[in-house]
Amino acid sequence: MSTVSDQSGATSAPSPAPPAPLGRPPKLSSRGRFSAPIGTSNSETTDIPELEYFGAPGPRGYPPLTDFLDIWDVDMMKRPDESNKIEHHTTLYHSDYLIVRRGQEFEIKITFNRPYKPNEDKFAVEFVIGSSPAISKGTYVPVFPKKEKQSSWRGRIKETSDNIVTMGLTPIADCIVGKYNMYVAVQTPFGTRRTRKDDSRAVYILFNPWAADDAVFLDDEKERQECVMNEVGIIYHGAYDDISERDWNYGQFNFGVLDACLLVMDRSEMPITNRGDPIKVTRKASAMINSRDDDGVLVGNWSGDYTYGVAPTSWTGSTDILLTYASTKMPVCYAQCWVYAAVFNTFLRCLGIPSRVVTNYFSAHDNDGNLRTDIILDENGRVDRNRTRDSIWNYHCWNECYMSRPDLPQGFGGWQVVDATPQETSDGMYRCGPASVQAIKHGDICYPFDAAFVFAEVNSDVVYYSRKKDGTMQLIKVNRTHVGRMVLTKAAGEVTRRDITDNYKFSEGTSEERTVLEKAEEYGCKRENSNPPLADVDVILPTLEIGVGDDFELNLEFVNRSDQRRTVGTYISGSVVYYTGVSSHEFLFRTPTVTIQPQGSVTESVMIESKNYMHHLVEQANLNFIVTGKIKETGKIVTSMKVITLHNPKLLVEVTGNAIVNEEMIARVEFTNPFTHTLKDVEVRMDGPGVMEHKKRLYSLIPGGTSLTWTEMFTPQRAGKTRVFATLDCPGLRQVSGQASINVKP
Amino acid sequence: MSTVSDQSGATSAPSPAPPAPLGRPPKLSSRGRFSAPIGTSNSETTDIPELEYFGAPGPRGYPPLTDFLDIWDVDMMKRPDESNKIEHHTTLYHSDYLIVRRGQEFEIKITFNRPYKPNEDKFAVEFVIGSSPAISKGTYVPVFPKKEKQSSWRGRIKETSDNIVTMGLTPIADCIVGKYNMYVAVQTPFGTRRTRKDDSRAVYILFNPWAADDAVFLDDEKERQECVMNEVGIIYHGAYDDISERDWNYGQFNFGVLDACLLVMDRSEMPITNRGDPIKVTRKASAMINSRDDDGVLVGNWSGDYTYGVAPTSWTGSTDILLTYASTKMPVCYAQCWVYAAVFNTFLRCLGIPSRVVTNYFSAHDNDGNLRTDIILDENGRVDRNRTRDSIWNYHCWNECYMSRPDLPQGFGGWQVVDATPQETSDGMYRCGPASVQAIKHGDICYPFDAAFVFAEVNSDVVYYSRKKDGTMQLIKVNRTHVGRMVLTKAAGEVTRRDITDNYKFSEGTSEERTVLEKAEEYGCKRENSNPPLADVDVILPTLEIGVGDDFELNLEFVNRSDQRRTVGTYISGSVVYYTGVSSHEFLFRTPTVTIQPQGSVTESVMIESKNYMHHLVEQANLNFIVTGKIKETGKIVTSMKVITLHNPKLLVEVTGNAIVNEEMIARVEFTNPFTHTLKDVEVRMDGPGVMEHKKRLYSLIPGGTSLTWTEMFTPQRAGKTRVFATLDCPGLRQVSGQASINVKP
Repeated sequence: MSTVSDQSGATSAPSPAPPAPLGRPPKLSSRGRFSAPIGTSNSETTDIPELEYFGAPGPRGYPPLTDFLDIWDVDMMKRPDESNKIEHHTTLYHSDYLIVRRGQEFEIKITFNRPYKPNEDKFAVEFVIGSSPAISKGTYVPVFPKKEKQSSWRGRIKETSDNIVTMGLTPIADCIVGKYNMYVAVQTPFGTRRTRKDDSRAVYILFNPWAADDAVFLDDEKERQECVMNEVGIIYHGAYDDISERDWNYGQFNFGVLDACLLVMDRSEMPITNRGDPIKVTRKASAMINSRDDDGVLVGNWSGDYTYGVAPTSWTGSTDILLTYASTKMPVCYAQCWVYAAVFNTFLRCLGIPSRVVTNYFSAHDNDGNLRTDIILDENGRVDRNRTRDSIWNYHCWNECYMSRPDLPQGFGGWQVVDATPQETSDGMYRCGPASVQAIKHGDICYPFDAAFVFAEVNSDVVYYSRKKDGTMQLIKVNRTHVGRMVLTKAAGEVTRRDITDNYKFSEGTSEERTVLEKAEEYGCKRENSNPPLADVDVILPTLEIGVGDDFELNLEFVNRSDQRRTVGTYISGSVVYYTGVSSHEFLFRTPTVTIQPQGSVTESVMIESKNYMHHLVEQANLNFIVTGKIKETGKIVTSMKVITLHNPKLLVEVTGNAIVNEEMIARVEFTNPFTHTLKDVEVRMDGPGVMEHKKRLYSLIPGGTSLTWTEMFTPQRAGKTRVFATLDCPGLRQVSGQASINVKP
Repeated sequence: MSTVSDQSGATSAPSPAPPAPLGRPPKLSSRGRFSAPIGTSNSETTDIPELEYFGAPGPRGYPPLTDFLDIWDVDMMKRPDESNKIEHHTTLYHSDYLIVRRGQEFEIKITFNRPYKPNEDKFAVEFVIGSSPAISKGTYVPVFPKKEKQSSWRGRIKETSDNIVTMGLTPIADCIVGKYNMYVAVQTPFGTRRTRKDDSRAVYILFNPWAADDAVFLDDEKERQECVMNEVGIIYHGAYDDISERDWNYGQFNFGVLDACLLVMDRSEMPITNRGDPIKVTRKASAMINSRDDDGVLVGNWSGDYTYGVAPTSWTGSTDILLTYASTKMPVCYAQCWVYAAVFNTFLRCLGIPSRVVTNYFSAHDNDGNLRTDIILDENGRVDRNRTRDSIWNYHCWNECYMSRPDLPQGFGGWQVVDATPQETSDGMYRCGPASVQAIKHGDICYPFDAAFVFAEVNSDVVYYSRKKDGTMQLIKVNRTHVGRMVLTKAAGEVTRRDITDNYKFSEGTSEERTVLEKAEEYGCKRENSNPPLADVDVILPTLEIGVGDDFELNLEFVNRSDQRRTVGTYISGSVVYYTGVSSHEFLFRTPTVTIQPQGSVTESVMIESKNYMHHLVEQANLNFIVTGKIKETGKIVTSMKVITLHNPKLLVEVTGNAIVNEEMIARVEFTNPFTHTLKDVEVRMDGPGVMEHKKRLYSLIPGGTSLTWTEMFTPQRAGKTRVFATLDCPGLRQVSGQASINVKP
């Protein structure tokens, strides 16, 4: 029973302690540690005995079974047209089970062997979740029909007719969310008799934004329709001054998605008993939607090489991703921020937590614990790429979910940021939030979870230094408004965007803004407070809408605000960049000297030819132009930056037909290769939430100038507004999309 | 470049997305995501070039090298008797390197090829840490000798004599903690020339509790001597009314321990740039000291079976554990809470963060998100073991470390709880803290990290329910004082304990206590607020000091506080329990009926014979007695619990000799097996911090009644007070120890 050898009293010198055998540490044994295993799986269940005797029978044995109440049948009333699903807003779930929401009554019909006698008969409806049910943990809940005998869930008899009792059941508004098994138990003098376990009587209980006592209560029907019920969304990308849209099929009601979401929690080994708390559920899910640490749902890849998976730009919806994860139990390849945010959104809406995807333009990413973004120039004003580390993402998507925050002081409930994109230093793990948007706006970044991190994403300074030859550094410019330039989300009930920057920040220059920044600094947010004198020459870069493959002229305007002539030794650099701000290839480098008269301005034109950038384009076709320089007369440095997102060609999507439920319609997708070169390995996807299953076609070659047309028949199953949308994606051209709206009549 | 097959326009039906190949998700690629890799290793370094040219040479080529300043030698002044180590309190480290603390000046001597001319010559001392040094990240720091040219670290010339310059260097008080490489660079007209990389010139920079600007500043020399410098400690265990002690050799200055602590951070992949922040360092370390999630230092095992490792009770110090982890890079077997706390303490003291091990008696452990501990009795008052889940640990050890908390509002700095024992639900990961002790005391549990969790460990209610036959539950008793009964730590500078319960809680019954509990409830701490009427009969269990193997009488006193006769149907249960409160074996069960006269009392005696419990004893020999019952006249339930820790036989440790440095002494350990049975596979360890290396002997058999004597020669190398202590451990008898104090004269 011990590792010591059989020596009698032999001395061994100080020897190293044995490491764990076989290269992996043995699993921590729970013997001696826990009196019972901790349930972390909703799919594992325990059988509850059909008979529980109270004790030894009396001297004459058990009394005869006659006349005791017995259960003949239980009707879960789970058809979509029955009141349970309608009143609980769960008719859209493609599921054979009863799905209801907590904090709100639902009903079942119990058929007994004889009429129920309220004064004599005792029965209970029992709910059990997980493998080690216990009443004190809320994993075993008996519900009684009588007022004077209530457990945490309320029960009442709504109607009695012959042998049938209609019972109303109200799960408590903070109960565990997941799949419960249901039993009916009757009490007989010799013990408890209950129904056999029957999967068809299982009940899914979800979060309830319609119930005032639920932590996710959202008192706005329009928002609830958008943030819980809407299956189609728009995710914004591009640049703050040139916004692009991406349609997404969240598919939270599709067959198998709810089970996949519960599986995500099971795979995370999250204790069952924590699953009623939206704070814990969303925090855990922010870790599980990405595969880091925990073999979660999606593998991140920003490299441009997606050989072993699906390019992040190619996805049109979440269903495929979640169902693949559920069936293979392995992370799915590949995601970037909007894919994480979209799948997370599906997870949240599916479980009933109101949520939306938001996009932050110029999002600072705290790579390594330094909340400022430093750009280092050399003595002449040229960017020193070796010493400039941090990147600002052109945009970044995360989620907001709605809940109260009983763990925080008053005032921090409401929308909470959660982010499933694997960041580098969110408390040392790949997860983020929930962080109160109110706390971020007011600089109260001392509250959990990760509020300081999100604050930096929308508030960081961009600090420019000039590095002298002897290694000393000089601060030359602080840009306090670049980061967090705009935060957008889809407007509720409309197909337009809503600017929610005000939710995150007070207006620039207000006293509130100053107070917030000072408060954040007290909580350790590092900001640059000195204000180096500005150069008296400004460089203005234009906002341009350019198509991929276009040649264009870039006009830089140099404005002299002084009363003297100014001569600027200029560096004009153009690079292809990833949307993460990381540079890929510098395709333009010029060093003109520009002379500007007092109070005058000069325009310097640079011709950009597509042949110079086309072959280096990565991913989302962003070009980053940096103009820096040194004023000869004053030695001051001037800087300016601009990201231009090239516009992709569009897919034409057309829908024809009557748009009536169960009548066939036709969708047509058209694309013309606008380039002279051939596109290879082209993947086209079509998706129509509620009307069409997701479909995919592969085209090995699309020669320059040629067109493809893809026609698909479909039959809408459901009335209402929706869209049919398509994406085209190949290594040479990513993120091409198009969509058409339809309004299906009943 | 894509997975799509070579079909031309063939349709494929909605197909599942490809999962990650080969069963494991591919590593997230950083291309397109980061402009430079993020340094997470202190052992990886980059070479800095010896020559950095400024540009192309002039028309006549490079100027001749004559008369330019050149570096001949650098003296790190790292001998223990030189001022650097003395003034930085680092003389005790067994290390060949210079070890200093941040925020405090140290000096080096640079020998040039000729006298240094302050007005002409330019040089810098450069410090580099990690593999991607950057000035803006604090991973590359040049230090200049001139006032007008300072970087974040200050430099000055303290003395010049001939060619030798003595330079004073002051690392900024929040710099990164770890091992830096040092270079001296001189500027020549054609570029920078610097010393070659030389490991002997590496500098370890530690946290500095003596520096007012350091976040770990502790303004109390006695506490600093204890919590940073003391290598020997006492860890308390047993029961609050029968306290036992365990000596521990922290060994934070032993050879290799500092490198092992840096390796722990490297293995955690903690970004180098975070390693100056004691909040992040301690939080990360609380995760890394245990092996869960991250292949950290110690594997937990509470099972009683330690076949493949060392029994937790057997260790006498941290050094073996840390050095084994450093050499094998695999988790070490096995630990329980005090081993985690002790090794964590070594880590913290070694890096210079003041820390101490504390013991909380009756520590509530939140197994699954329910902050109350529920005990369920049946209708007759007998404990229903199937339905009673939670356990209260007899004691639990964690660490306190001292630091400011700039991330929180004022008033939460000072001692912070960190806990490396793998808990179940500390934010879903196996780590805990830093949680401000002040925040815990005042119920401000909304602040990070894990304050609510620690609050529950010292403040939970024990709630007793009675479960009726029909499944309904009735609250019968709430004990609000059992949990967190006492918190102890070793007193600074003394070999006694200090009761620090007041640091965690206001006195019971005060208005402050009520306010705190109400505040905690607002932050989601669940408490039981109803006060069921108490039974009018009390059961009092005695405090006993019993040796392992003794027979003894347990006298239960039943006190009737009413004016009527009372009859109690009693259940007396005695179980062997782990120190985690988990029951192993019930060895006693009696059901006497006790009758007590009005206002009278009755003593019920139960004889406990060792033969009944001896063969079932686990681990730390705890017996748990539970007395419950129902008063026949009133139907009320009475309950009482008591844990008795049986006392083990002692080891006799004797030290003889003159106790003078470098003079040989003799340590003698004696043990007599007091039992009639043979002890097998006995491991005896001897340890003497500062005077003797850790030693171990194995005895395969010690027959009942026989003795062993182990004599060991040793030669103290260092003056001062210390202790020699020994442990004896075998599967049949754990946690036997003894110690002797010595005061070595110089």
